[in-house]
Amino acid sequence: MRYHKIPDETIQRLPIYLRGLLLSSNLLRQNISSNTLANILGTNPWQIRKDFSYFGDFGTPGVGCDTKKLVKRISKILKLDVVHRTALVGVGNLGLAILKFPGFKTFGFDIVSAFDTDLRKIGKTIKNIIIEDTVKLKLLKKRKIDLAILAIPRESAQKMADELVKVGVAGILNFSPCNLAVPMKVKVITIDIAMDLARLPYYMSAS
Amino acid sequence: MRYHKIPDETIQRLPIYLRGLLLSSNLLRQNISSNTLANILGTNPWQIRKDFSYFGDFGTPGVGCDTKKLVKRISKILKLDVVHRTALVGVGNLGLAILKFPGFKTFGFDIVSAFDTDLRKIGKTIKNIIIEDTVKLKLLKKRKIDLAILAIPRESAQKMADELVKVGVAGILNFSPCNLAVPMKVKVITIDIAMDLARLPYYMSAS
Repeated sequence: MRYHKIPDETIQRLPIYLRGLLLSSNLLRQNISSNTLANILGTNPWQIRKDFSYFGDFGTPGVGCDTKKLVKRISKILKLDVVHRTALVGVGNLGLAILKFPGFKTFGFDIVSAFDTDLRKIGKTIKNIIIEDTVKLKLLKKRKIDLAILAIPRESAQKMADELVKVGVAGILNFSPCNLAVPMKVKVITIDIAMDLARLPYYMSAS
Repeated sequence: MRYHKIPDETIQRLPIYLRGLLLSSNLLRQNISSNTLANILGTNPWQIRKDFSYFGDFGTPGVGCDTKKLVKRISKILKLDVVHRTALVGVGNLGLAILKFPGFKTFGFDIVSAFDTDLRKIGKTIKNIIIEDTVKLKLLKKRKIDLAILAIPRESAQKMADELVKVGVAGILNFSPCNLAVPMKVKVITIDIAMDLARLPYYMSAS
């Protein structure tokens, strides 16, 4: 089920709420209120209540909402209630950081395959994953992998994205600072860390 | 000068426009229209025109805007019209990827110092930068560095952020999946790559 009316900004914040709820200390609470969640996340309770209003309410005022039910509800909306088998393409420094990053499991992402073009890397094992040659990308379909993380230089990003689309990948998390051209049915989210840094000075106080 | 009325969403998009304009092929154009820019970026021209309406207009309809002037104007709003001396704290896989990432220069960020706690890394040179012991963070003030990129494990992130605040850092780009508590005058932008991945399945077509 897709909730068409939820704005992108809300979808962007839901994983933040989910991460906050999944902190072990919070999972021990039977109920959680928007004020408590806002406190934990350092955000506004009204923003949380507004975001939640798109798909339900926040339980009884003053009591809050059943924590586990809330986790389930947000996970379902974000389609994170199933394990997503994910491939990593590009095992450079960034790729290595991604492979070792513990945060993906929280959301049900399981990186099960890793690919590179560098012969010195192919065949090596990192975190129980054998790095394979990118010519083997066609195996993704058989392995039921529909999500890929692209951590390669800009020059080869489009070519590799084309390959991924060909083998049935429906979502790409792209770390190359470029816009990938993909068919409408494929969703790309591009992370350019320089872009995030570029927002900082605007908000910094004049010193 | 700080333009108080510009919404955060617009500020988030301005670096994307700036990156698009700075592509060498576009800098060669005398004028650029919102339609052309939208085409390059794969975005909506009306969105661009709306964003630009907060601080001016997009030149003459049908002709567009002087490209170089536009670059200057956006850079000035984002306070990217000066070089920002930046420090990297944490030279693990992610830190290495950041050090080698070419995209920062585009926006005027110059990573001039790098720090780590690992004795095996301290003293090594990467990209002409000698990795120093984090006990030397107090040198940041003297080096006129007011921006830091934090690429360390979650456990030590808050402690290191406290150190950075103490030595006068006004902005932190934080890669640890946690909310840092800092004084109001310090701006933190947190990037949790798992969060971005967590948005993907929602947008992926049911297959």
